[in-house]
Amino acid sequence: MKPLSRKLTFQIPLPTEEDARSDRDRVLDTLRPGFGRLEMDLSVTRMLYPAIRSAGGQITVTMLWQGEAWHLTRVEAGDTTAFHYGLAADLGSTSVTMELVDLNRGTVAARASRYNLQREYGDDILTRIFYGKDDPEHLLQLQAAAAETLRLLMAELSERSGVDASQCAAMVLAGNTAMVHFLLGLDAFPLFHSPYAPVTAAPGFVPAAELGLELMGPVFLYPARANYMGGDVLSGIVATGLGRSEGIRLFFDIGTNGELVAGCRDFLVAGAGAAGPALEGGVIRGGMCAGQGAVEHVSIRDDAVELEVIGGGVVRGICGSGIVDLIAELFLEDVLDFRGRLQPEASSRVAEVEGELAYRYVDGDRTADGRPLWFYESDIRRFLETKAAAWTMVSYLMEAVGMEFSDVEGFDVAGAFGTYIRWQSAVTVGLYPDLPKERVRCVGNASLEGARCLLLERSHLEELDKLLRRMDYIQYGAIPNFVETMQAAAAIPHLDLDRYPCVRQWREERRRARAQQKTDGQNTAS
Amino acid sequence: MKPLSRKLTFQIPLPTEEDARSDRDRVLDTLRPGFGRLEMDLSVTRMLYPAIRSAGGQITVTMLWQGEAWHLTRVEAGDTTAFHYGLAADLGSTSVTMELVDLNRGTVAARASRYNLQREYGDDILTRIFYGKDDPEHLLQLQAAAAETLRLLMAELSERSGVDASQCAAMVLAGNTAMVHFLLGLDAFPLFHSPYAPVTAAPGFVPAAELGLELMGPVFLYPARANYMGGDVLSGIVATGLGRSEGIRLFFDIGTNGELVAGCRDFLVAGAGAAGPALEGGVIRGGMCAGQGAVEHVSIRDDAVELEVIGGGVVRGICGSGIVDLIAELFLEDVLDFRGRLQPEASSRVAEVEGELAYRYVDGDRTADGRPLWFYESDIRRFLETKAAAWTMVSYLMEAVGMEFSDVEGFDVAGAFGTYIRWQSAVTVGLYPDLPKERVRCVGNASLEGARCLLLERSHLEELDKLLRRMDYIQYGAIPNFVETMQAAAAIPHLDLDRYPCVRQWREERRRARAQQKTDGQNTAS
Repeated sequence: MKPLSRKLTFQIPLPTEEDARSDRDRVLDTLRPGFGRLEMDLSVTRMLYPAIRSAGGQITVTMLWQGEAWHLTRVEAGDTTAFHYGLAADLGSTSVTMELVDLNRGTVAARASRYNLQREYGDDILTRIFYGKDDPEHLLQLQAAAAETLRLLMAELSERSGVDASQCAAMVLAGNTAMVHFLLGLDAFPLFHSPYAPVTAAPGFVPAAELGLELMGPVFLYPARANYMGGDVLSGIVATGLGRSEGIRLFFDIGTNGELVAGCRDFLVAGAGAAGPALEGGVIRGGMCAGQGAVEHVSIRDDAVELEVIGGGVVRGICGSGIVDLIAELFLEDVLDFRGRLQPEASSRVAEVEGELAYRYVDGDRTADGRPLWFYESDIRRFLETKAAAWTMVSYLMEAVGMEFSDVEGFDVAGAFGTYIRWQSAVTVGLYPDLPKERVRCVGNASLEGARCLLLERSHLEELDKLLRRMDYIQYGAIPNFVETMQAAAAIPHLDLDRYPCVRQWREERRRARAQQKTDGQNTAS
Repeated sequence: MKPLSRKLTFQIPLPTEEDARSDRDRVLDTLRPGFGRLEMDLSVTRMLYPAIRSAGGQITVTMLWQGEAWHLTRVEAGDTTAFHYGLAADLGSTSVTMELVDLNRGTVAARASRYNLQREYGDDILTRIFYGKDDPEHLLQLQAAAAETLRLLMAELSERSGVDASQCAAMVLAGNTAMVHFLLGLDAFPLFHSPYAPVTAAPGFVPAAELGLELMGPVFLYPARANYMGGDVLSGIVATGLGRSEGIRLFFDIGTNGELVAGCRDFLVAGAGAAGPALEGGVIRGGMCAGQGAVEHVSIRDDAVELEVIGGGVVRGICGSGIVDLIAELFLEDVLDFRGRLQPEASSRVAEVEGELAYRYVDGDRTADGRPLWFYESDIRRFLETKAAAWTMVSYLMEAVGMEFSDVEGFDVAGAFGTYIRWQSAVTVGLYPDLPKERVRCVGNASLEGARCLLLERSHLEELDKLLRRMDYIQYGAIPNFVETMQAAAAIPHLDLDRYPCVRQWREERRRARAQQKTDGQNTAS
C-alpha cells in the first residue's frame, strides 16, 4: 500500500549563522533527497514558522503525489503521523457517496450517502444541463449544490467517526463527465450535442477552495476518456483491475447510460450508449427508484406472484431489479413470448387495461389505495428496446475486437442495479450474456471503490495515464446494420436462441414443472 | 524583447465526431508544439467554452512563463493581442511605486507612487515586525495594508491611463525580505534576530487572489538571497546588469539598510548591514524625509551658507542629501576636522547649544518660528558611525575578494538617496570611494526598474536563478579587526587620507581660495 499522500515527521535543522537558509528551504532540502521534485505553495508556507517554532523543529509534513511532483499540503507541529485520512467520493446524479479512508490502515473508517442536492434543478442530468446552459448564475447554483452535498457528507462522516474530515490529506472523486463539469462550474451543454466535446476531460488536482470545499488537501477528479466514458467508468476500471488483467474481461456499468469496456492488459476498447432510464424504472408506469415500497424481486409460479418489497409493507411501485425479474419470470412462465407480447390465455392476471394488455403483478390488497399495479406491454417494449441498444453496443464492441463471449474470462457489472439484479433474470431477458454464473461479478459502486483504490495506491495515477492513452473509444453513431442488430436483440433473450442455451433449458424445466403440477393437480382432483 | 507573458490569437479547430477532444485539449494541443510544457488551471478552464463559442473558435490566450512551464492565465474571445500590459512594483517600507508597462511596446504607460499604508502600524520596519509577532490578527492587518496600497496604486494607474490594471497579465514585485513577508502574511520576526533565517526566500509566482489582489495573472515576487539581501537588491542587480558585466562593478543600495554587491559575470559577493536611519535624516535633530521644506543641498563659502530647499519657502529641516552636503562643506571649509569635531574659531556660526557644539546652518529668518536650525556635533558623530559601518562593509567585501577600488569599472548607487546626493559631497565624507565621477552612476529606484526589466525580458528569470546560486553572501558578524576598521572609517573621509587624493586636493583648493579671498579683502580694505 503506497497511499497518494504521505505523512512524515522529522526534526528540521535549526538555523545557524552559517546556515540561515529559509524555513522553506530547510524543509524542502531535507525532503528532496528522498522525494525529488517538491512543491509548496503559499498557504503551506504560512504554516511553517508557527509549526517549527512551537515544537522546537519537530514537524510533520503531509505530501501528496500529484503525478509529476510531491506537493506539500500541510505542515504541523510535532508528530501527527497517527492521523492520516483521505476522502473517496462517487458523485452520482442521484446519489452521492463518500468514504472516510484511514490511510495508515487502509480501511474505511466511515461511509455516508445522500441525495445530490442538484436534484432541485432537475431530476435527470439533461434538465440540469439545460438549466445551466449559457447561464453563469445557474451554473453557480449547480456548482454550489454539488459542493454543498459534498460538504454535508463530510460533516456526516466527521460526526460518525469523530475524525474532522476537513483535515483529510485529499479527496479523490469520480463522477460522470456532466457531474464533473457541474462541480467545476463549467457549462455542460457541449456534452449534450454532437460532437460531444467536453470543456475539460482531465481537470486533475483542483484546490478544494476553488470548489467551495474546506479541505486541507486538493480534490483529484478522475479523468474521462470521452463524454460518455467519464471518470466514474475510469474509476471502475481501476477498481476491477481490468487494465491489469491477463485474460479478457468486460466491465459494464448500467445506469442512465450504459458504459462498456472490454479488454485486458494488452488492449482496451470502450463504448457507451444511452441505456435509458428504462432500466432504472424511470419511464415504466409504476416504476420507481429502489426505496421503501419498491418491488425488488419477483417470482412467478403457476400464476402465483411472490414479491420481495423493500422495507416490506405496502407496495408503491417497482424498481429496476424487480422489472428484470418480472419480465424474466413472465417469459419463463410462457406468459410473455420472445417478442415481448403478453399471452392472455396463459394467465388470469393478463387483462386489457387502458387500451392495451397488461399484467397485474400486485393485487389491490397490497397497495395503499387498494388498486392493483399493472405492468403494461408498452413498458415491456420500452425495456426491451433499451436492452437491445445495450446489447447491440456490447456485441458491436466484441465484434470490433474479434471476440466471442466464450473468450471472456470475467464480466463485471457495476452500479447499484448490477448489485441487486438476479443473475438468472438478467441472463433470461438477455441483458447479460449466457456465461457461467461464476464469471459474472457484481462489483457494486465501482466508481467509489476506484476512488478509494487511488487514495490507497498512488501508482494508479500512472496506470490511469496509460489507460487513457491505450483505450480505444468506439462511437456508435455509424454502426453498420444497427437496426437489424437492434431488432434481433430486442427479442427475449435474443432472436438467436442458440446464443442462450441456458435460457432455453430453464424454460424447458419450467414447462416440465408446470406440466407435472398440472398432472399432480389432476391426480389429486381425481 | 521577450516579455514574461505572451498573447497569441488563433483559430482552435472545432470538434468533430472523429475529433471530440475537450476544449482544453484542443487549446493545449495547438500550443504545445511551440511552447512545450503548458499548465492551465480551473479558473482559466472556466473561460474556455464561452470564449470559444462566442467568436467561432477565434481566441486569444495569455501565457505566462513561470520558469519551468508556460501557464495559461487567460482565454478571451476574438483577437485581443493589442491589449498587453503588466505591472511592475517596488514595495518599500515608506513608499510604494508601481508602473503600468505596455508589453507590446516595451514602454511605461503610467507610474504612480504613494505611502505604504502599513505606516499606520509603525513608521519603521522593526515596529511593524513586533506588531505582527506571534499575532495572526496583526499579521492579517499588515498584509491587508500592503495589499490595499497596491490596490490603490492599481486604481490610480487605471484612472491615469484608461487601461484597466486588473486585466494585466502579471505583476512583478520587488521588496525587501520583511516587506515580502508582510505581503505574504508571514511572521517576519525570525528576520529580526540571529540567525536571521526567513520563512521563505523565494515565494515565486503567487496567485493574486491569495494576496488579496484582483488581477488576471499571478504576482511574481523577486527572491531574496538572504534576510538582508532582499528581492529589492536582486531586482536592482538585474536592472544594472551587474551579473552580466565583463568588468567588476559595485552595486550599493543605501536606505535603512545598506546592501552591497560586488562582482561581474564571473563572481558575485554580497553583504549587508544596518546603514541606519542616520543616512535618511531619521535620528538627526531637525532631520526629515525629503519633502516640502527640507534642505536638500548646502554650499558654504566663507561662512556664508547657501541652501536649496525643496519647494522653496520656509525651511522645516534637513534631509539625507542635505546632511551629506553639510558635513562635506563643513569639512572642506575646515569648520569640521577629520574626527568630526566642530572648530569654533573657524566659523561664527559655531556655538555651544544645549551643552554641545553645533553649527547654525539655517538662520532664523528662514524658519516658521523665527528660530535658527542647528546641526549638532553628536548628530555628526552618529552620521559618521553609520558611514563607517557601511564603509567597513564595503572594504571588507572588497578585501574578501582581493579587489581594490581601482579595479572597479563602475559603482552603481541605488535608492532615492543615491539620486539626490552630490557626488563630490559623498566622496568628501567618505561615503563613496574616490573614483572618477563618470564611474559612479546613480541608478535611482533600481528595484522598480528590475521589476520592469523582468516583465519585459523573461530570460531574467533564469539569470535570477543563476545569480542566487552564484552569489556568495558574507556575514559581517565575525569581521576581524572590525573595531579598528570602523574607527578608521569614521574619520572624514577616512583616517588614511591617501585613499582619497581627490578630497585632499579639493580641500587644498578651498584653502587656497579662502586665503586668496582674505588677501583680496585685505587689499581692498587697505
